[in-house]
Amino acid sequence: MTVHLNTAGAGLMPAEVVDTMRAHLAEEAAEGAYETELRHADVLEQGVYRTLAEVLDAPVADVALFDSATRAWNSVVGALPLTGTDRLWITPYEYAGNLILWTELRSRTGLRIEVVPLTSSGDLDLDWMRRNIREDVCLVSVPHVPSGCGIVNPVEEIGRILAPWPCLYLVDACQSVGQLDVSVRRIGCDLLTGAGRKFLRGPRGTGFAAIGARLRAIAAPSFHDLHVAEVTSAHRYGIHTDSARRFEYAERSGAAVRGLHTALRHHLARTDAPDTGQHTRAAVRDTIDSLPGTRLIDPGTRHASIVTFVCEHLHAARIRDELTSRGINVWVAQGNHTPLYLPGQGVEQAVRVSPHYYNSPKDIESFGQALQEVIR
Amino acid sequence: MTVHLNTAGAGLMPAEVVDTMRAHLAEEAAEGAYETELRHADVLEQGVYRTLAEVLDAPVADVALFDSATRAWNSVVGALPLTGTDRLWITPYEYAGNLILWTELRSRTGLRIEVVPLTSSGDLDLDWMRRNIREDVCLVSVPHVPSGCGIVNPVEEIGRILAPWPCLYLVDACQSVGQLDVSVRRIGCDLLTGAGRKFLRGPRGTGFAAIGARLRAIAAPSFHDLHVAEVTSAHRYGIHTDSARRFEYAERSGAAVRGLHTALRHHLARTDAPDTGQHTRAAVRDTIDSLPGTRLIDPGTRHASIVTFVCEHLHAARIRDELTSRGINVWVAQGNHTPLYLPGQGVEQAVRVSPHYYNSPKDIESFGQALQEVIR
Repeated sequence: MTVHLNTAGAGLMPAEVVDTMRAHLAEEAAEGAYETELRHADVLEQGVYRTLAEVLDAPVADVALFDSATRAWNSVVGALPLTGTDRLWITPYEYAGNLILWTELRSRTGLRIEVVPLTSSGDLDLDWMRRNIREDVCLVSVPHVPSGCGIVNPVEEIGRILAPWPCLYLVDACQSVGQLDVSVRRIGCDLLTGAGRKFLRGPRGTGFAAIGARLRAIAAPSFHDLHVAEVTSAHRYGIHTDSARRFEYAERSGAAVRGLHTALRHHLARTDAPDTGQHTRAAVRDTIDSLPGTRLIDPGTRHASIVTFVCEHLHAARIRDELTSRGINVWVAQGNHTPLYLPGQGVEQAVRVSPHYYNSPKDIESFGQALQEVIR
Repeated sequence: MTVHLNTAGAGLMPAEVVDTMRAHLAEEAAEGAYETELRHADVLEQGVYRTLAEVLDAPVADVALFDSATRAWNSVVGALPLTGTDRLWITPYEYAGNLILWTELRSRTGLRIEVVPLTSSGDLDLDWMRRNIREDVCLVSVPHVPSGCGIVNPVEEIGRILAPWPCLYLVDACQSVGQLDVSVRRIGCDLLTGAGRKFLRGPRGTGFAAIGARLRAIAAPSFHDLHVAEVTSAHRYGIHTDSARRFEYAERSGAAVRGLHTALRHHLARTDAPDTGQHTRAAVRDTIDSLPGTRLIDPGTRHASIVTFVCEHLHAARIRDELTSRGINVWVAQGNHTPLYLPGQGVEQAVRVSPHYYNSPKDIESFGQALQEVIR
């Protein structure tokens, strides 16, 4: 049996998710895909949105589906009206993909990018934020949990700091939804994006966003698809809805959306202890820390189920490959995927270990034994 | 057994496509989705592009994958540098989704939209094109086969007319790839887009484009994803490739891409007679034409496997529903989805019948009997 410690890449789908998708595909092949979609319209048009809204603690009108979290982020952020007088706050933990978009927007609009500093513990400097927040900060972008290390950023506390100010508050929750209690309402953000495939254990090719009404009121999507628009002449069309779905494209895999729906329901039905993740994460961390020659990349005071480390005498890719050949799945975190933090820590590549509630103590033991073999 | 005459919506996937996808999903759930992707990298990173290039008769460096044909179209067209002095030629058969994008671009750039007229037969007026083509026509957009009626537009002949001129030539081949012989090389277009799910019998959530080098040289995608870019600082990144893949996003469903690959190979291995589609189409057309009270929407001199009709005393949606209850899948073509043609023909909704080579003479007979029952 494979020991899967790469949930930050993609989690293992529960059997019921795979069964839902396989049945959907078989139905499409026998009865037609449009016809199958109609038969499951209750889930595809209603149920999945209601369930996602429940998982995110957000209004149903705010949630929309995409084929990836990157698409969700870019579809919304790319629709914001930005100008050269605006200041953007990002953090050292910003994901490189998001940073590419910021760089593109900066070159087009003149937007000024500022990086929130860290305290000596590696936490975001909230006092700096309190002291420096002004009217001209238009956007604040924070990853709830970065993909390159396990710090949990205090998104709710940041939300309280920003609440009196006009800036839009954007949270990348790709690595937190499914492993932490994520509440859009409590965070108070205008945009929260996530991926179906990671800690939610949904299928690949699914992403989502909660897009608040304040943001929707000023954003202009670069395109409206036919499911939310009606063409009235060669030069005119109207939009049916003000909901977040006007950022969506109509065409998508019904199998993937139903798989995501099943994963969301599976998540809501979880009965494992709330601190399962913390225990497992601590066990992984202690295992790595006990081995000589390893260095944990472990900033901050609060942590989620992502443990990143380097080994002084062995490349991360080599460790990954050796562990894979022993039936242990881990991944390589590229330093330049968290380019404002990891390279500064001397990290070009690190081994990323991301357990989830389905990993048993025995899994962690197997990982520890294999790692010891590999790096000794 | 269902008689599927809605391939223009989505074709029936061959068993081997469904089997490929189901096996991929099971492998992901057991072994991890990133790990499964690595194991099938030969297909996902190479094979599917080579096979698609073969199907489209285009260079491998020109082809890219998307989650829909609409996404493919918009990702490329939205990246073109357009100005208010440019003229855009579209046809009366333009798809409403594409028209929405043109309308958006017009409102942003001032682009002038001109509609190529039809001859009395409903064919595009090629003489008008020859007489009116000038240096300031920057774009020409032609659907190979529209979704609302079965006319085959002469895309190769149009390519020869446009070849001496600087305009970019864009062909929407959603409804032709898989049922007609489509050759990007012979058409001579700068962009050709298509959907996996229709006449190619691939999965939903797949689309593709052939993006020529001339277009790529001037297009600026609004975002580059990490699989083609490398971030070097907070303000800089570089692009690895000049291939069409720089328009892609990295995250996608491996199951869907492998399903598409299997469908493309299945298509290349077809042994049915080249005129199967013509025979079936003619039988459908004759069946409808023989029934009193029906009116075919059948412009032009060359036709593909889409037959659209209205019935003077029964709504199209009612006919669709009645046929569905008899085990016959057809679809409703909305007039305002082909807004520059169908409404002018008095068509608000029409019944669309789209057979494929898998439909037998007996299927068409069943359709004819059921239709006769429904509309008499």
